[in-house]
Amino acid sequence: MGSALAYPLCDRGHTVRLGGTPLDDSIVEQVRKDSTHPKLGLRLPEGVVAFRHTELFEAAQGVDAIALGVSSAGIDWASTILPSLLRPGLPLFMITKGLVLENGALRTLPDVVRGRLPEALRSTVAPCAIAGPCIAGELARRVPTCVVLAGHDTAALEVIGALIETPYYRLFPTTDVIGAEVSAALKNAYAMGIAFAAGKNERAGNTAGSIAMHNLESAIMAQAVVEMSRIADKLGGARNTVTSLAGVGDLDVTTNGGRTGKFGRFLGMGLSRDEAIVKMEGATLECLEILAVMREALNGGSVPKTTLADVPLLDHLIHVALDGAPADPPIHKFFGRGTL
Amino acid sequence: MGSALAYPLCDRGHTVRLGGTPLDDSIVEQVRKDSTHPKLGLRLPEGVVAFRHTELFEAAQGVDAIALGVSSAGIDWASTILPSLLRPGLPLFMITKGLVLENGALRTLPDVVRGRLPEALRSTVAPCAIAGPCIAGELARRVPTCVVLAGHDTAALEVIGALIETPYYRLFPTTDVIGAEVSAALKNAYAMGIAFAAGKNERAGNTAGSIAMHNLESAIMAQAVVEMSRIADKLGGARNTVTSLAGVGDLDVTTNGGRTGKFGRFLGMGLSRDEAIVKMEGATLECLEILAVMREALNGGSVPKTTLADVPLLDHLIHVALDGAPADPPIHKFFGRGTL
Repeated sequence: MGSALAYPLCDRGHTVRLGGTPLDDSIVEQVRKDSTHPKLGLRLPEGVVAFRHTELFEAAQGVDAIALGVSSAGIDWASTILPSLLRPGLPLFMITKGLVLENGALRTLPDVVRGRLPEALRSTVAPCAIAGPCIAGELARRVPTCVVLAGHDTAALEVIGALIETPYYRLFPTTDVIGAEVSAALKNAYAMGIAFAAGKNERAGNTAGSIAMHNLESAIMAQAVVEMSRIADKLGGARNTVTSLAGVGDLDVTTNGGRTGKFGRFLGMGLSRDEAIVKMEGATLECLEILAVMREALNGGSVPKTTLADVPLLDHLIHVALDGAPADPPIHKFFGRGTL
Repeated sequence: MGSALAYPLCDRGHTVRLGGTPLDDSIVEQVRKDSTHPKLGLRLPEGVVAFRHTELFEAAQGVDAIALGVSSAGIDWASTILPSLLRPGLPLFMITKGLVLENGALRTLPDVVRGRLPEALRSTVAPCAIAGPCIAGELARRVPTCVVLAGHDTAALEVIGALIETPYYRLFPTTDVIGAEVSAALKNAYAMGIAFAAGKNERAGNTAGSIAMHNLESAIMAQAVVEMSRIADKLGGARNTVTSLAGVGDLDVTTNGGRTGKFGRFLGMGLSRDEAIVKMEGATLECLEILAVMREALNGGSVPKTTLADVPLLDHLIHVALDGAPADPPIHKFFGRGTL
């Protein structure tokens, strides 16, 4: 996704210095050799120069902004290196998304990143996060895309939005960082569950088509939005962030285009969790990470006035993905029975 | 859909008297001959007896409840015949959904039906409406299904829910008739728009898959939920009816399983409205009806504090489907620019 951002950035006339992590040396080599990105399978735009992780300090000299594109697992590495790359007031935006549990509290990754900056930078750098429905391979093909730009500092939101936006890549600013990050993190778990329906349909020997298990799929999707809204609300976010681009939109794209949906389909087909993981051939499964975080958070009281009993679909997803229970969503517990 | 309801009803131990309209004589014949329903392509359950439209009075004798399953175009016929079939206090539920414009006011079909009943019946019959994501052919195959049962009278909701509910067919009661009916009516228009993305992808020579135009599709879906919520709210309904089963769920099922999605795909592929209608081979296109109603309603001030400028996606859908404009959703106008 970090590399895919180069397309709108270069279309806006910027040059892009693409910096790798210690795991990306082969990608950097490839880009230097023939300007193609092996994971995107595309030629990067003119104006992209690639840097190895050992060359990041050089890469950061004189830049207008820094974009952080590591996966959530790379946050520790990034936090160590960022202070040497940033200067006071430099716009920083991140596509790294998620929630982590620290000392019993759920925190958003932009806040974690900011919290780890040295004092002098922390007071002038306000990290913004890009969230919402965006498949990297589609952005790189310039498919019309709308995303959310979330941050506490409205001035920073304006600066960053103005740097990036193109006619096919629209950024919608919001100061509801919690709503945006809850959506970004939880959509992985819930998209897995929505995909159970396609898997169950396959298991029943049916083909995809207009008669499949869309009734079940859509009930799970609606319950997902209800539960995500509740969790965002109780953590201090806005329900209407979830019921818009960041939640509904990202849930839809993740179900239809992402690896999470594929994993959920395998579970719906009746594969065990371990069998399904093997079939995913080493793909990162954010859904497993966030389900483990949410189990601990909900059992430990980190979401006010909410236990697993209040989010029966999430409870079921945890049992399926972490404990090996069969995929059989408890539709009789959905929609708060009469309190729609 | 009326016939599909026979499956849960018979599974609950009821016998079902399936009554046809004047257009259904050949279906009634077929059911009498070999118990198969030609449109569902399935054998109806034991306990279903079919009646011609001339035999409805006989069919209604001694029943526990009446279900009204005509399309919205059949409401006039149904309103004429219902008084002779009903008796005071008889539970009446309808799967006929929609909004009509009467004397400048948008009205829900359950209210229209009730308003046309003779005084003596009107005071004791409280029509309830079934809405939400349900493909008839899936319900008839006992795919797990959740729907909304909407009505003003909570006692009637309870009685009807208790008559119908089965483990695979769950009814979630709500007194938010406006939210449920706005969702049921508008989802047809918006599902057409969501399907533009698949059509545009096909037009660009791409196949469906994980890299397609899911980014665009999900942005349109999210904006659809935002606009439907606004319209429901301004008409006195609840936003959270739209952001749950009745809205989000039905939008999803209609996009993936319905004829509306197919029609939208044709428009996205660049077919003109008339070419797309020809390709639909006479299928009822509820989206065209509701778009015409909404244009008149929004231009005439029937939705408080809302004009077409406030719902830019709906405005675009109207231009495409009614005026022949090309399908090119105005994503730069989505999400209220900064007021997410």
